[in-house]
Order: sequence, then C-alpha cells, then structure tokens
Amino acid sequence: MEDANVVEANDGTISVASAFAGYQQAVQDRDHKFLTRAVEEAYRGVECGDGGPFGAVIVCDDEVVVSCHNMVLKHTDPTAHAEVTAIREACKKFNKIELSDCEIYASCEPCPMCFGAIHLSRIKRLVYGTKAEASIAIEFDDFFFSDTLRGTGFYQKAHLEIKMADDKRGHHNRAGIKVEILGNIKWID
Amino acid sequence: MEDANVVEANDGTISVASAFAGYQQAVQDRDHKFLTRAVEEAYRGVECGDGGPFGAVIVCDDEVVVSCHNMVLKHTDPTAHAEVTAIREACKKFNKIELSDCEIYASCEPCPMCFGAIHLSRIKRLVYGTKAEASIAIEFDDFFFSDTLRGTGFYQKAHLEIKMADDKRGHHNRAGIKVEILGNIKWID
Repeated sequence: MEDANVVEANDGTISVASAFAGYQQAVQDRDHKFLTRAVEEAYRGVECGDGGPFGAVIVCDDEVVVSCHNMVLKHTDPTAHAEVTAIREACKKFNKIELSDCEIYASCEPCPMCFGAIHLSRIKRLVYGTKAEASIAIEFDDFFFSDTLRGTGFYQKAHLEIKMADDKRGHHNRAGIKVEILGNIKWID
Repeated sequence: MEDANVVEANDGTISVASAFAGYQQAVQDRDHKFLTRAVEEAYRGVECGDGGPFGAVIVCDDEVVVSCHNMVLKHTDPTAHAEVTAIREACKKFNKIELSDCEIYASCEPCPMCFGAIHLSRIKRLVYGTKAEASIAIEFDDFFFSDTLRGTGFYQKAHLEIKMADDKRGHHNRAGIKVEILGNIKWID
C-alpha cells in the first residue's frame, strides 16, 4: 500500500511521515499568521506611543480573542506588558480566570512576569517570535543581568507547550520579523 | 571610653555592637508593623471574597502608600495578585511607572509573576512573611512543581534588598502570623 502520505513498510508498520510534514507546515503557517498579528500589534503600540514595541495575541479555536500591545506608558503601569494586558482582556471577555482553551502568540520571548501570568492563566500553548536577548539591543534588559530569572522559556516544566518560532532549519525565520521591529524602532522614554 | 552603645577595645577599635543591635531591633519592629498590615489585608481579602488569602503593602518614607489584597476573583483577573495590584495602585497614585523609593511588604513569598512585577517597578526592598511552600497546604501550588521557576526570592541577583521575616533566631516568628492565616482559612473556589 502506498499513496502520497502513507507508506506501509515490509514489517507492516505504517509511516505517515509525509502527512506529518504536511501537518507541520499547516501548523507553521497558522503560527506564522498569528505571530504576524502579534508583531503588527507591536508596531501599532509604538506608533500610538502606548509603550514598548511588544505585541501579544490570544487565540481560541483558531479565532483571535484579543490583540494587545504594551500599555506601560498609556496606563502608567509597569505590569501592563502586552502578554499581561492580553490575558486580562481575554479573561474579562470570557468572564473567567483561566484560559486553558487558548494559545498566546507573543512578538518576543515573555519576561518572567509575563511567563508567570501565562502560566497562572493556564494558557495551553505559547508561541513567541524571537529570543529575549533581542530586547537588550534596545535596552529592554530589565531581567537579563539576572541568570537565575531566566529559564522561564524552553527549560521549565510548565503545563503548556512552548514554541519559539525562530526555526533555524525552517524556510522562514520568523524571528526576523521581530528582529526587524526591534532593530528599527528606537525606544523613547 | 564606654557608654551604653559604644565600646572602645584595648587596640583602639570601637565597637558599636549594641547600638547596631538597637538599630536592628528598630528595623525589625518597623518591618513587623508593616508586615502585620499586609497580613491584615490578607484577612480582609478573604472576608470580602475578593480572592486568595494574600496581602501586600507598599511603603514610602515610612508611610503606607497602598494596602491591597488579592483581587483575582473580584476582577476576574488571574494577574491581580496582591503585589501586582499594589504596584498598579501605587503607580497610579504617584503617576509614574517606577517605585524606586518604595518598599513592599507581602504576607507571603511572591510568586514568580509578582516577583517579576516588583523587579520591573524598581521597588528597592521586599519583606515577606512566610515561604511560598506554606501556600501548598491550601493548594496555592501553581508554581511549586516547577523548580526552575523558583529561586526568585533569596537566590537571585536583583537590585532590591529581600528579607524573609521568618527569623528562626529571633524573638518573633513573623511567619507565624501568616502560617496562622494559611492554616485557618480554607480556600473556596
């Protein structure tokens, strides 16, 4: 038996490698779409002067629930990072304190505070555009002198799936989107 | 030369041990006063059903700026922990995004999200009542399966001074206040 996506080997095992590759591509395309939205939010936030160049989108059942950017300056609130703002708004929208059916797309690797908020809200999946180190170039280095505060991304044991969309093997370097925004925008205090 | 607080030894060095002890006691008394206020806030929050049994007080120039408790249920916001709520309110009150002249007193060791918020707000000193592990007993164990998310208290390299007021050598076990509240209050979901 053989067709485009399924291969049966001599020992009777079935390989769905090519089907899986197709699925992976679909996931990547979907992730790229929502991540692009998060990056657009980052641009929007800077344009209107609300805060730093960071965006976050919360998705449920393939629909964007909320799309937010950093509101630290607008709200005079150092906790109003894009991810925290998105979580607050999504919880208000759903009128519940947990978002276990949701995914979050962040333009940049969340800081420890935001990662904590993502964890507390039970969001099931986090996709982010570029590593936190990219922020250092524009002096968003609040946490990065402190090694013990890192490790909140790939290396922790949270309940959620975490993906950095900076795929070195892939066709698209999604981080490029964010590196571009981080590179082009000067932070104005 | 000798008086109540200063001792000059044979080699001419001067000891101010007893004066320093007096200073330490004054600091402890001050810390105890504000920490008690934070614990009272924790009780208040539970009484009015706003959220979990956690309180936080922000102090500037020996004056209480804000006194807040967990508002997660009241605001349908998983980020509305006592510390985050207090930081938001203090920033609004001062109309600025940093609180470098302030101290924060928390009834319990802050979770990573709250520690992140404290760090971002530039608060200069954190005093907390009891270790985070005490929360486990009442099922506030959101973070405690994840060792890599710990170490946000004593062991990190933040700019702020951190003190746990659970002084095993001391005359008062300040943690006792909080252990009492954690032990007596059942969490109602």
